[in-house]
Amino acid sequence: MGLSTAYSPAGSRLATPPLGAAATARRRSVQPLRPRRHHLLATVRCSVDAAKQVQDGAATVAAEAPASRHAECFGVFCTTYDLKADDKTKSWKKLVNIAVSGAAGMISNHLLFKLASGEVFGQDQPIALKLLGSERSIQALEGVAMELEDSLYPLLREVSIGIDPYEVFEDVDWALLIGAKPRGPGMERAALLDINGQIFADQGKALNAVASRNVKVIVVGNPCNTNALICLKNAPNIPAKNFHALTRLDENRAKCQLALKAGVFYDKVSNVTIWGNHSTTQVPDFLNAKIDGRPVKEAIKDTKWLEEEFTMTVQKRGGVLIQKWGRSSAASTAVSIVDAIRSLVTPTPEGDSFSSGVYTTGNPYGIAEDIVFSMPCRSKGDGDYELVSDVLMDDFLWERIKKSEAELLAEKKCVAHLTGEGNAFCDLPEDTMLPGEM
Amino acid sequence: MGLSTAYSPAGSRLATPPLGAAATARRRSVQPLRPRRHHLLATVRCSVDAAKQVQDGAATVAAEAPASRHAECFGVFCTTYDLKADDKTKSWKKLVNIAVSGAAGMISNHLLFKLASGEVFGQDQPIALKLLGSERSIQALEGVAMELEDSLYPLLREVSIGIDPYEVFEDVDWALLIGAKPRGPGMERAALLDINGQIFADQGKALNAVASRNVKVIVVGNPCNTNALICLKNAPNIPAKNFHALTRLDENRAKCQLALKAGVFYDKVSNVTIWGNHSTTQVPDFLNAKIDGRPVKEAIKDTKWLEEEFTMTVQKRGGVLIQKWGRSSAASTAVSIVDAIRSLVTPTPEGDSFSSGVYTTGNPYGIAEDIVFSMPCRSKGDGDYELVSDVLMDDFLWERIKKSEAELLAEKKCVAHLTGEGNAFCDLPEDTMLPGEM
Repeated sequence: MGLSTAYSPAGSRLATPPLGAAATARRRSVQPLRPRRHHLLATVRCSVDAAKQVQDGAATVAAEAPASRHAECFGVFCTTYDLKADDKTKSWKKLVNIAVSGAAGMISNHLLFKLASGEVFGQDQPIALKLLGSERSIQALEGVAMELEDSLYPLLREVSIGIDPYEVFEDVDWALLIGAKPRGPGMERAALLDINGQIFADQGKALNAVASRNVKVIVVGNPCNTNALICLKNAPNIPAKNFHALTRLDENRAKCQLALKAGVFYDKVSNVTIWGNHSTTQVPDFLNAKIDGRPVKEAIKDTKWLEEEFTMTVQKRGGVLIQKWGRSSAASTAVSIVDAIRSLVTPTPEGDSFSSGVYTTGNPYGIAEDIVFSMPCRSKGDGDYELVSDVLMDDFLWERIKKSEAELLAEKKCVAHLTGEGNAFCDLPEDTMLPGEM
Repeated sequence: MGLSTAYSPAGSRLATPPLGAAATARRRSVQPLRPRRHHLLATVRCSVDAAKQVQDGAATVAAEAPASRHAECFGVFCTTYDLKADDKTKSWKKLVNIAVSGAAGMISNHLLFKLASGEVFGQDQPIALKLLGSERSIQALEGVAMELEDSLYPLLREVSIGIDPYEVFEDVDWALLIGAKPRGPGMERAALLDINGQIFADQGKALNAVASRNVKVIVVGNPCNTNALICLKNAPNIPAKNFHALTRLDENRAKCQLALKAGVFYDKVSNVTIWGNHSTTQVPDFLNAKIDGRPVKEAIKDTKWLEEEFTMTVQKRGGVLIQKWGRSSAASTAVSIVDAIRSLVTPTPEGDSFSSGVYTTGNPYGIAEDIVFSMPCRSKGDGDYELVSDVLMDDFLWERIKKSEAELLAEKKCVAHLTGEGNAFCDLPEDTMLPGEM
């Protein structure tokens, strides 16, 4: 594995991010005084061909300002508008800026339209979408932006596309980090950790430099827990509490399987926690789960099923799905991202909780500090969360939690060079990627 | 082209559907007295493996009832539930049954989740989804149903899958007919009309036999206008007014292009009608269109652009998109289907209208009767619509409308054997498929 670029004691967050030469070069356009996009667009410049637009824009602006690598507005979303001037929109909330990486991929292709429709943030919340792609995917990003244009969503006021996170993440309130390299044939988890870790280290630095100081970050790209850890370690000026690794699809799948086994509709199942890593060491918790408000064990007497098949079925779900459908579960993953965001912006129902992979500092369960671990959370709907304190624990549950914890501590050692905690040492004996996932 | 199976005078609808031997055989399970699904499911039978379930169910039921080819409930959606027993759901409306054909395809993969989320029919409208696929796609249908399970949508109460329209369409209130054979290499529009026409003739007969007597049908599969005509001709017991061919994506694209040209946000554009066929003879109407409540010509002075480039840009949109994105526009097509349904179940805003391909009987414009033609509609939100009477017409608009009308009359002659109107005679000199469409 690569060498460390900076050292700070294990367990602490970086005081200064280890910005390398490459990162510094990329930041050359980040200057507090550079003109803002809407100032540049005093005259409306619109084009269906955004690639051309980016070039034109760059050429025009170069003469007047040194910074010219803005993520560019796309097509009809370059038009000016005034929400306050319109009876229908003047009571709307302030625009929310949402960045999505991997924006040309299949999960995003579902998610972006859900965000634009208002089903996530509500019908009075206008949004701006900032789409991050790669050199390779820029044409596809334009295709996505064209479909967003053609959807005429009233709440979707701005769409911009770009390939530089220092541009795309500027002032974002949410960063939904979906993009990651897929695992190639024969590639081990350790190699994937390194390749994708680099991406999330860069994106963490970019968020630290240009995002809203209270940006909420949801990491979906795998291995998502450790990617989230890398990301937050590289963004010391953003509260670590703001970073999440997505385990909500696992929670949703677990709820469905409990409902199936108990013969009830899934809306009767609550308090299902996924503990630990988004991998095969994850722990779907049936001890604290409830069906119709009562402990699961009262509704499902088949302990062998709960202890053995339940967890296996949840974990194998993605693999079964890819066999049947021939693709990975993009639609339900997007739904679970919507659920994860909604859980942070709406109050959690009384007595219930939701799962999220969050930073373990000061956790009440005795889980190792300084990793990203999925745990039971509640929210007041303000974007923040608190950990649930009254959870049941038994030996069966705790032993499995410790196994997932051990895995995350080992993954952390693999990426020490990316978190500024010394030399990486990687010893991951098992392949714990979930079937059907990249 | 094939021979006619029955004859009735042109312009009339069939008194009796021309049911062939094949159709009769398929209908063997359609018997008024056969047990209904929920009766069969007095005990909850659940399985993640719906393929197995279909077989098991068939074997079990065969002994007790002659009819056993029901579309089968899937997985957790086989569980019983009682909306009235739950405080959260007891004020909900009565369940709406929605059939979707081509349910394993990409458009459906967006649409089904939109239907389930409540964004189409509202947050107090529980729905049942009935997914129609083919022998070939049955595994993929199961994959889609699994993703719907994992999405835990509270409003989605039932999902069933099947390959026989006589089963899947039973009691449906909406039929969204997306599935159609894609055009093979070198295949002419005439051949596509025949192949897909057969599908829509069969589905029309099935709707006529088993659907709700007031089912609303939206045909998306191409060539959608003539497919809709074939479908309604084969469903004489369902009001012809209930059949629609989707031209809403064309309308949405036209609105976006007018907004771009005028430099306004797209929510300022209204009254945009697509006239005619969903093909390159379609007529996006800029004469009646409005920007900020004023005629488009006041906001866009470039008449040459309006008369030449505007229509071309709208029509080429799908082709440009497929070039950039590498796929057809599944997401925005699904959005436009949502828009089309919403336009029928919510009152049209004062002074506005929407486009839909509808049956031309008694139209006020002088368009030939007895075809499916896209025209400006308004709705009271009751699922029905009326044509807008106060439209402006000039020679430029009328000449183009007549060209699209001529095409649809020619297409109608190509499918006379499928509508019971004599021998087919097919003379379609031009390829008028829209670029980027199947």
